[in-house]
Amino acid sequence: MKGAVLYGPRDVRFEERPAPTIEKATDAVVRISATCVCGSDLWPYRGIQSIAQPTPMGHEYCGIVEEVGSAVKSIKSGQFVIGSFFASDNTCPNCQIGYQSSCQHREFVTTAQAPMLRVPLADGTLVATPEVPSDEMVPSLLAASDVLGTGWFAARAANVKPGATVVVVGDGAVGLLAVLSAKQMGASRIIVMSRHASRQRLAREFGATDIVTERGDDGVARIKDLTKGIGPDAVLECVGTQESMMQATRAIRPGGSVGYVGVPHGVELNGEELFYAHVHLHGGPAPVRRFLPELIDLVWKGKINPGKVFDLVLPLDQVAEGYRAMDERLAIKALLRP
Amino acid sequence: MKGAVLYGPRDVRFEERPAPTIEKATDAVVRISATCVCGSDLWPYRGIQSIAQPTPMGHEYCGIVEEVGSAVKSIKSGQFVIGSFFASDNTCPNCQIGYQSSCQHREFVTTAQAPMLRVPLADGTLVATPEVPSDEMVPSLLAASDVLGTGWFAARAANVKPGATVVVVGDGAVGLLAVLSAKQMGASRIIVMSRHASRQRLAREFGATDIVTERGDDGVARIKDLTKGIGPDAVLECVGTQESMMQATRAIRPGGSVGYVGVPHGVELNGEELFYAHVHLHGGPAPVRRFLPELIDLVWKGKINPGKVFDLVLPLDQVAEGYRAMDERLAIKALLRP
Repeated sequence: MKGAVLYGPRDVRFEERPAPTIEKATDAVVRISATCVCGSDLWPYRGIQSIAQPTPMGHEYCGIVEEVGSAVKSIKSGQFVIGSFFASDNTCPNCQIGYQSSCQHREFVTTAQAPMLRVPLADGTLVATPEVPSDEMVPSLLAASDVLGTGWFAARAANVKPGATVVVVGDGAVGLLAVLSAKQMGASRIIVMSRHASRQRLAREFGATDIVTERGDDGVARIKDLTKGIGPDAVLECVGTQESMMQATRAIRPGGSVGYVGVPHGVELNGEELFYAHVHLHGGPAPVRRFLPELIDLVWKGKINPGKVFDLVLPLDQVAEGYRAMDERLAIKALLRP
Repeated sequence: MKGAVLYGPRDVRFEERPAPTIEKATDAVVRISATCVCGSDLWPYRGIQSIAQPTPMGHEYCGIVEEVGSAVKSIKSGQFVIGSFFASDNTCPNCQIGYQSSCQHREFVTTAQAPMLRVPLADGTLVATPEVPSDEMVPSLLAASDVLGTGWFAARAANVKPGATVVVVGDGAVGLLAVLSAKQMGASRIIVMSRHASRQRLAREFGATDIVTERGDDGVARIKDLTKGIGPDAVLECVGTQESMMQATRAIRPGGSVGYVGVPHGVELNGEELFYAHVHLHGGPAPVRRFLPELIDLVWKGKINPGKVFDLVLPLDQVAEGYRAMDERLAIKALLRP
């Protein structure tokens, strides 16, 4: 089988790799229906995060179960399943309180940009759809695997309630789906920080009411202007840079909540500044597994269409083109079909 | 009238100051029944926080209303009242959601170590007791003015629920009253980090179930040992140093909450570490006004006795001795009677 391997900065190759097999009794092997390139894949792609050796890529996936290990009870061959980037047992104390991405036995799924994938801890990790979905529904189900689940967590972490005023920092796929999530949770005003016309359009389609193009202190000032000088109830931080975190913590109203899901790169927070901001801060790698049943149900019933973030669809063998398009911001997110 | 004035490191003088008068129609003047020295007063007393000029001191107070301005409606002369260190209007948007210490019109009360005190925004700031209390109850009512309200906020900020496992970092008056607060909120296990026998005794009296004497990484390891390797549901950080914040954020379980009320001095938080800790972080200057009615009620009914933190009672003219005793950790907290 052939899959994506990153060799170094801007060097993704589609090359022969061993086909996955059941290694442990709790594994499943899934035939991938669709996978994609993640914004977080761009950190090593751009060389900002270094890699020690040629590295298989991909952590977003959905598809048909091909085979399960002898200990797998709830997942069966032939089912269409979605999983998260962290395999989790869904039974340990951390899973039980909804933090499956801190599962005591978690394993990072890293080889999903391929036609076949081994998923550890299949019972805890995979969630099956009621039936095999139509082709048109696959992109939205794939989105649940990471970007929707992550945007959803940003909104939950920031305690978005009906009637809330929400700011979303970041207009990548996660930011856009954080808009969709805030809308689903009843936010009445959703302000998005974005400078890109096509992303602004999709943000508005997902429920954004205002766009702020300023950044840094100017962006914070603009948000304060839009919120009677008080600041929003919630900020969903979907980037992970020092600037984006500062925008979030400086814009928030006293007592408001920042949910942050952008993987922090070089972010340092000043304790005194946080203290006097009276901010609630919560985030981390999204416990997507907690939300999967609810998100799959919303997609299945046609209530949300998060698959719209995929504005580029490629055959899997053109995976390198998907990375390039996202790196150059020509595409929001590239879906790959084996 | 004579009051406390800080001239420089370890130089507190009890000297003549102008008696306060009604300056604005919303002011009240209060005859102080009791005031005290705060742990945060020790930062400038020790020279860690510099002062530009001789500075009157004191922000904890209770007493009898002597006079009110013409616009004051709910507070009357002769009432016994308690206020917080931040005067607040209790009507602005920040006050309305319970963050009176971020009131848009807040004023810091800074001259309470004196026989008489001007309190701005009297209607929003002061809460009256049902009657003038007995002398024995005064210390517990005074505690509500800051240290109890602050410990209570730490527990609320850390979302302490019935049955929770809680760690308290810090065995000063705030830490000890954070123990009392967690106990009131139904925590079933309360672990206190303390190395002082007398403070450990009071912590146990307030509801502590375990004492940890180790600090830093050893302290974190000991807490993990005591919590099946998972960590507590809540940590109440009541110190404000880099070490105490690290103990808090490294001990907490994934998805748990750190409530921090120690004023941060030189604290920097690494974004990536917080991210992977899955911690909820909330704190700041306690909105004591939010809690005053509830706390006064608990004291009035004899359900809590937070005044026990005052292990030294001095006449006000010996205020310098109160600072010295606290600085040398000979006293937990010094109460001053004019």
